[in-house]
Amino acid sequence: MVVTLGELAARLGLALLGDPAVGVEGVSTLAESRPGTVTFLAESRHRRLLAETRAAVVVLQERFAAECPVAALISPNPRAAYARIAALLYPQHQPAPGTHPSAVVEPGARIDPAAHVGALSVIGAGSSIAAGAVIGPHCVVGEGVSVGAGTRLVARVTLGSGVQVGARCIVHPGAVVGADGFGFAPQAGGGWLKVPQVGGVRIGDDVEIGANTTVDRGAIGDTVIEDGVKLDNQIQVGHNVRIGSNTAVAGCTGISGSTVIGERCQIGGACAIGGHLDICSDTIITGFSMISHSITRPGVYSSGIPFEDARTWRRLVARFKRSAKAADAPGGPEESGPDEPGPDNQAP
Amino acid sequence: MVVTLGELAARLGLALLGDPAVGVEGVSTLAESRPGTVTFLAESRHRRLLAETRAAVVVLQERFAAECPVAALISPNPRAAYARIAALLYPQHQPAPGTHPSAVVEPGARIDPAAHVGALSVIGAGSSIAAGAVIGPHCVVGEGVSVGAGTRLVARVTLGSGVQVGARCIVHPGAVVGADGFGFAPQAGGGWLKVPQVGGVRIGDDVEIGANTTVDRGAIGDTVIEDGVKLDNQIQVGHNVRIGSNTAVAGCTGISGSTVIGERCQIGGACAIGGHLDICSDTIITGFSMISHSITRPGVYSSGIPFEDARTWRRLVARFKRSAKAADAPGGPEESGPDEPGPDNQAP
Amino acid sequence: MVVTLGELAARLGLALLGDPAVGVEGVSTLAESRPGTVTFLAESRHRRLLAETRAAVVVLQERFAAECPVAALISPNPRAAYARIAALLYPQHQPAPGTHPSAVVEPGARIDPAAHVGALSVIGAGSSIAAGAVIGPHCVVGEGVSVGAGTRLVARVTLGSGVQVGARCIVHPGAVVGADGFGFAPQAGGGWLKVPQVGGVRIGDDVEIGANTTVDRGAIGDTVIEDGVKLDNQIQVGHNVRIGSNTAVAGCTGISGSTVIGERCQIGGACAIGGHLDICSDTIITGFSMISHSITRPGVYSSGIPFEDARTWRRLVARFKRSAKAADAPGGPEESGPDEPGPDNQAP
Repeated sequence: MVVTLGELAARLGLALLGDPAVGVEGVSTLAESRPGTVTFLAESRHRRLLAETRAAVVVLQERFAAECPVAALISPNPRAAYARIAALLYPQHQPAPGTHPSAVVEPGARIDPAAHVGALSVIGAGSSIAAGAVIGPHCVVGEGVSVGAGTRLVARVTLGSGVQVGARCIVHPGAVVGADGFGFAPQAGGGWLKVPQVGGVRIGDDVEIGANTTVDRGAIGDTVIEDGVKLDNQIQVGHNVRIGSNTAVAGCTGISGSTVIGERCQIGGACAIGGHLDICSDTIITGFSMISHSITRPGVYSSGIPFEDARTWRRLVARFKRSAKAADAPGGPEESGPDEPGPDNQAP
Repeated sequence: MVVTLGELAARLGLALLGDPAVGVEGVSTLAESRPGTVTFLAESRHRRLLAETRAAVVVLQERFAAECPVAALISPNPRAAYARIAALLYPQHQPAPGTHPSAVVEPGARIDPAAHVGALSVIGAGSSIAAGAVIGPHCVVGEGVSVGAGTRLVARVTLGSGVQVGARCIVHPGAVVGADGFGFAPQAGGGWLKVPQVGGVRIGDDVEIGANTTVDRGAIGDTVIEDGVKLDNQIQVGHNVRIGSNTAVAGCTGISGSTVIGERCQIGGACAIGGHLDICSDTIITGFSMISHSITRPGVYSSGIPFEDARTWRRLVARFKRSAKAADAPGGPEESGPDEPGPDNQAP
Repeated sequence: MVVTLGELAARLGLALLGDPAVGVEGVSTLAESRPGTVTFLAESRHRRLLAETRAAVVVLQERFAAECPVAALISPNPRAAYARIAALLYPQHQPAPGTHPSAVVEPGARIDPAAHVGALSVIGAGSSIAAGAVIGPHCVVGEGVSVGAGTRLVARVTLGSGVQVGARCIVHPGAVVGADGFGFAPQAGGGWLKVPQVGGVRIGDDVEIGANTTVDRGAIGDTVIEDGVKLDNQIQVGHNVRIGSNTAVAGCTGISGSTVIGERCQIGGACAIGGHLDICSDTIITGFSMISHSITRPGVYSSGIPFEDARTWRRLVARFKRSAKAADAPGGPEESGPDEPGPDNQAP
């Protein structure tokens, strides 16, 4: 799709410095910008790349406009403006309403005439699929599920019975919402007795759930993902967790059961968050952290330590290392090397 | 389903303090108990919630009965008694026997007349599905697989060729049992040569496998999951691992190839367990631990350190931090901050 | 399949010490060797097992031949020779060309007559499946995808629109290639605005991708996996990552967006690798490492520290622990125990 700079400026309400008749038909990165494309400058450390840009137009803040050798679209938030432009240039393909003949729709399911159900999907009894929703191919929608207007299950998504998903959500392939939580009682004679997981899952509006992420149903009561939450790939959300609105969680993080996370938090990738904790709103947790205590004050945390403390701690460790290295003599005792790479625990 | 307290007491063999004619029709948590429900007190630290309970009955130990303002069912193991009551109140839906017309059953597969095969599942040649087994929708059962009596593949489960699953197991959506292990030989001219993975997977009885968990087939010989093992979501079990009976593993833990884990172990979430190790029976490993050595004595371990040592270690670290902080002056050398949150490694 | 030792020696070009007429029909491990099988000795520490072997023949290096009580096949690289023998004895089942009647092939898809498309798979419009490719059951191949000659999607693989996969690749069940990367811009009024992910994924030749591994499409430009890369299970590869040829990554590792990894690297399991990093060729990273800085010199690294430094560090910690333990008196201050095992964060 070709759009002129003038049209972009008008539709996004941005000031344009340059020829409004120039057309663009794609996007590129600032580092590898290409003619005929839109790019953007979001971080001042990339400013040096501006001079060599070959893009037709750069979206940037006003303070950098003078340095821009090509046309400029002025925005206080270039990344967001870029996102809107990219959405214009690459419109999401919306499949035609209707149900693919290979899909299996069980009795009592209500599919809005303006919804799409893709090839080989299964829609369980008593489920409802709202207008504009897109159920991609190979999805399994359990019994009594509700999928809101405009929500898209990309492909091969599983929603367990009774799961409620709001409007305008996106769920990526392999995600499983509503599997049983991990609940067992030790038995007198040995072994584990399954604790029935009778709660549900409620997903708000505008939520995105990444590929192969899992969100368990509640043991008693529901697991809740509030409006605007963004979950990356391969995240595990335990039973009865609640994640507050607009919180974002990066990939591979696990959140244990019954933990409550506030609003607007940013949680890094590969974190392990314990169970029955309270993480207050506006908390930022850096990647690969283990969180085993509740957090009651907004801030930036690494492994549960406030970030300033973490910096201090690293400084101290560095000092200790230096002094100890000086004192170190060969032949001292040594823990055997736990992390020598080997064929099985590290690489094939 | 409504059940009277008298009926519950009789069916579970518990003493009832209260009116046997009162009916209940659901469960609730002690913290948010609701009229007409059963709740339970499993940990004495929640005892203070008893006074305000609105539930119809609380399952608890005899020592707390005097504090209970409503009816009480007395059990030495309230969590297990609660699990049995919840199973009564929320009976598992058992789909009717038979094979859905959309399923693909390959020649030579033997499906017991009392088994259920759901929509769009594929049953490979020479496989056998025993009585009472439920193969949910969208499962792929490879060639020569055997699924035991009463086992339930919830939906979208993949069992590779030759995999054997015992009786009364539950396998959740997205689980993959019997993919190739990760085995490659370096080649003289560079690159990796695939080592054929010719072993199988044997799963015992009463095993539960969580959503998106993967259990690889053996390289030579089988990967073995013994009776009563419980695996949470997103666990990775490498080739030729053996997990002893009634061991439970929490979510996101990875177990590298050829490691042998004993019976009745409890392994926390997000652990990384090296390959070719022996973890003895009755070992408890806390979450987010890296285990790189074998464990030969039952106990509680954090990152392979016995728990008492770990407590000592933390105490020492706290002391070191305090003394070092006192000695610290501004402007000292500092390792650059590896974990400053950023848009890509931490949150969007 | 029974093969004689003489035939094996001839086909692999190996010297045989022993009776060429002896037949073998399987493989076994050195530790549990069985009559009529081939086994191999790849590491000298297992040499003591040679004396008791019951196998028909052992593949080993010449220097161990004198200790071998049975026939020997001599190879400088016994593991690779074993891999070739196992491939002979256990030939991969190649399904017959053709498309299963239950598959859904959308208009404009080009399926080579010598390719196989399995039960209930979906092949998107405009996709091309080359000769000898095997699309197993329950795969979802998006629009405009290309799958190279001889590539095998084992079962239940998802390839998003436009994904390109080279020749002779193997992709295991549950893998998702080409889901959206995790890209959002903070909005002025609060909440996140989705940044369209308009790039693709290019997978080279001879790549293997493990079960439930996810490879995201690029935000702008492509995510690239070069020839010969081997990815284990449950790995997360972020948008615009590039992984160089013949690099191998063990299970459960996450690689954040825009990171570039060189050739011939070996990356351990359960690592967390930050975004926008450069990891040079021939880098080895031990398991459970957090990598938050670029690596510019080939070597062995633990959590980003060169391996020799890591050993020094552990030695110092051990010394510190010993001295501190001596000085420790009971009743000192103590951080509360973050990792006491409990029912929810650790095991059921």
